[in-house]
Amino acid sequence: MKKQTIKDLLTDYKKVLHHDITVYGWVRAFRSNRFIALNDGSTINNLQVVVDFENFDENIIKNINTAASLKVTGEVVESQGAGQTVELIAKKITILGDNFTEELQSTILQPKKHSLEKLREQAHLRFRTNLFGAVFRVRSAVSFAIHQYFNQNQFFYINTPIVTGADAEGAGEMFGVTNFDLNNIPRNEEGEIDYTQDFFGRKTNLTVSGQLEGETAAMGLGRIYTFGPTFRAENSNTTRHLAEFWMIEPEVAFNNLEDNIDLAEDFLKYVINYCLENCKDDLEFLDKRFEEEQKTKPEKERAKEGLIEKLQNVVAKRFKRVSYTEAIDILLNSKENKKGKFAYPIEAWGADLQSEHERFLVEKHFESPVVLFDYPKDIKAFYMKLNEDNKTVAAMDVLFPGIGEIIGGSEREARLDVLKQKMEEMHVDEHELWWYLDTRKFGSVPHAGFGLGLERLVLFVTGMTNIRDVIPFPRTPKSAEF
Amino acid sequence: MKKQTIKDLLTDYKKVLHHDITVYGWVRAFRSNRFIALNDGSTINNLQVVVDFENFDENIIKNINTAASLKVTGEVVESQGAGQTVELIAKKITILGDNFTEELQSTILQPKKHSLEKLREQAHLRFRTNLFGAVFRVRSAVSFAIHQYFNQNQFFYINTPIVTGADAEGAGEMFGVTNFDLNNIPRNEEGEIDYTQDFFGRKTNLTVSGQLEGETAAMGLGRIYTFGPTFRAENSNTTRHLAEFWMIEPEVAFNNLEDNIDLAEDFLKYVINYCLENCKDDLEFLDKRFEEEQKTKPEKERAKEGLIEKLQNVVAKRFKRVSYTEAIDILLNSKENKKGKFAYPIEAWGADLQSEHERFLVEKHFESPVVLFDYPKDIKAFYMKLNEDNKTVAAMDVLFPGIGEIIGGSEREARLDVLKQKMEEMHVDEHELWWYLDTRKFGSVPHAGFGLGLERLVLFVTGMTNIRDVIPFPRTPKSAEF
Repeated sequence: MKKQTIKDLLTDYKKVLHHDITVYGWVRAFRSNRFIALNDGSTINNLQVVVDFENFDENIIKNINTAASLKVTGEVVESQGAGQTVELIAKKITILGDNFTEELQSTILQPKKHSLEKLREQAHLRFRTNLFGAVFRVRSAVSFAIHQYFNQNQFFYINTPIVTGADAEGAGEMFGVTNFDLNNIPRNEEGEIDYTQDFFGRKTNLTVSGQLEGETAAMGLGRIYTFGPTFRAENSNTTRHLAEFWMIEPEVAFNNLEDNIDLAEDFLKYVINYCLENCKDDLEFLDKRFEEEQKTKPEKERAKEGLIEKLQNVVAKRFKRVSYTEAIDILLNSKENKKGKFAYPIEAWGADLQSEHERFLVEKHFESPVVLFDYPKDIKAFYMKLNEDNKTVAAMDVLFPGIGEIIGGSEREARLDVLKQKMEEMHVDEHELWWYLDTRKFGSVPHAGFGLGLERLVLFVTGMTNIRDVIPFPRTPKSAEF
Repeated sequence: MKKQTIKDLLTDYKKVLHHDITVYGWVRAFRSNRFIALNDGSTINNLQVVVDFENFDENIIKNINTAASLKVTGEVVESQGAGQTVELIAKKITILGDNFTEELQSTILQPKKHSLEKLREQAHLRFRTNLFGAVFRVRSAVSFAIHQYFNQNQFFYINTPIVTGADAEGAGEMFGVTNFDLNNIPRNEEGEIDYTQDFFGRKTNLTVSGQLEGETAAMGLGRIYTFGPTFRAENSNTTRHLAEFWMIEPEVAFNNLEDNIDLAEDFLKYVINYCLENCKDDLEFLDKRFEEEQKTKPEKERAKEGLIEKLQNVVAKRFKRVSYTEAIDILLNSKENKKGKFAYPIEAWGADLQSEHERFLVEKHFESPVVLFDYPKDIKAFYMKLNEDNKTVAAMDVLFPGIGEIIGGSEREARLDVLKQKMEEMHVDEHELWWYLDTRKFGSVPHAGFGLGLERLVLFVTGMTNIRDVIPFPRTPKSAEF
């Protein structure tokens, strides 16, 4: 890329100081008919362009409005003002394209405070705001750090199918995928829908997880990870759910539960640290925003740590590892449980933990990220390894402050007979998963993996609170605009 | 990751020479009851494990069969045999899991030559073969190189929606996505399907391209790229088509057509060079396989270059840049055209180029990768920039030897009035794309981008010939197993 970005210029200005350069960007503000704040998306920081209006055609000056697109050539000089290293003394300005200032009034590009909801309605324009510029640059950094971590550790990236006949969780409401004309669905002699005539010759859905296919790949390549979209057709209109979201699922041959927890902890710390090192400006902006937001809350609901402080602490602290059984003891004996403060009181071993319990453990009891492991088999999926106690499985969840579960995983059941029995008990169709069972037939090995929802991690890193604000074009019930 | 892979051991053996280490893997072969070829997927190379059968339980020796999974502890010593640096003198061997040797006979794990078609039927096991291990490690390297290239050049990774109401190409058969019970589709008072009752409250499809949403992101973030699955419901049963494939689509604000071509060339060379540097062993294996395959062909159909040689040449040569108009002249004047050798003879300017024409230009005329640009507007999409001649658009295709088109892109039409007129002429619904038009209203800028089909590039780099063999679980008409 030959063009210089504003980020290049602001970070590496010494070699162009007192030289003429050309930059491109959008006007964020034009003060006193003299100072243009120019942004090109490469950084949250604007370049100050200084205009001596006497040197320019009136038509140009008139059209330097908010959102206008400019090409500016000028001299780089040390800045007089605070908060910026250099500025550009404009010598030539070109307006690059249309800017309908009247229509702009009804958009989020108009320079005033807009609600997050309004920003969401104009998701195609919110990339141009400071907030969403920061959020999506951080999301990109998180994604790259994930690929880099796995690449450095000899994992191979595997694309598991999006359209599939299999249902990994044995549950989960799925979206159907079809090529049928819904006004004219073919039927067989029994009057049933004839899926053999559909595009794939069978009933197909959008995947809810790539894990099962990922396991087959790990049985050959050793260490693999997926990173792709997954889907849930659940009618959940909450700040935590999306119908379409991105999942990362590593799967490692020869790993046991402890290896899996080690991997999850090392991985999360690497990714968060990468952001701390590579997204400084954006995180400082988000940190300030987070602080402002806390001030609007009642004192006892405020976060104990600032955003950056929270991220630094996660990287620094060793995650607390606690068995499900210990966690239940802690919860049973807690003041909160005894005084009936939980919406779902814990009554006995075997209870499924709710978000309130997870957050109690993380935020109040341990004040640290927590890894829970060895859950009751009845509340976990069929593919998890049955422990010797015959009542727990080698599952693990990583719980984060403010978020709750951020990672869920397990050592997998590698024994064919035990796996088959679990599938029968849990009504998972053995014939449909013939290929999955094969992985336990030909040199079966212990293996383990986990799933991370990308958007949950981006929520954590950015301090945003609604999951619709950390994916460019959220898909939720009754909403698939753009 | 604490565990040592066989790749670690073979490349960095000096620090463990004469030490005891533990390795894990699957048996590829067991010769003379003495030499185990052990593979763990980290590399195409096997570790030779030397077993003195007198030191081991008979039951262990008996179970060291093809595909068996082992944990082996032993001493690393310099190898006596050719072609390997070190071997492992086994001191302790553990069989890790089941291996049903009888059932193995009907699988592709049985050590003999299997057809690619049979391997495809057992896609869940083919990761364990030399060939597909190599192919999927290279695919992973290609993917990582793509992320790394864009990250280094200040592009942000953007996830555009998979489920969408929009149709980027204005054509293309799409898969429907629905939550309806197909036996009981709700209808409105007019008797039409009532999509307001579907999950998203509207008719939705699987995306055919993330470009249009990507453009909106580039209008804020400057340089972006997508990398995600795309779909075509075309009933094409060929070696070149998949119903589900992965696309990379960069989009760059302020770039014109020439910048776009520069980017495409630089990008492709980076990715291919990354593979040459990081996938040596796998490419050498694939190079030999390619050579063997060429020998089975009639002499005049054989490739002029070996696989690695071809990759090196693409990296070294400057791509030939030729306008569509020049290309038509060359084709019109070619012996091939005059003698009627083309299945689709070129008759005049305006003709859409077929694969045979593209390959003639690349493989015979120029003997170099070729970039064609400035195509007739009528054979290209609505969003491409209309040139001043009023009859061509600023489109570009990169053509590769043996593959034909590997990249297609353009400078985009940044002028709102021209774009609207093109949409009207080409019957693209303006109201549905209101958000796309907005990008031309508020500081419109020149911008350009392109699309690369990941599988096409992996075909090129691996020398494979059927696109179903470069994606783990291919989706094609009447086939969605796994």
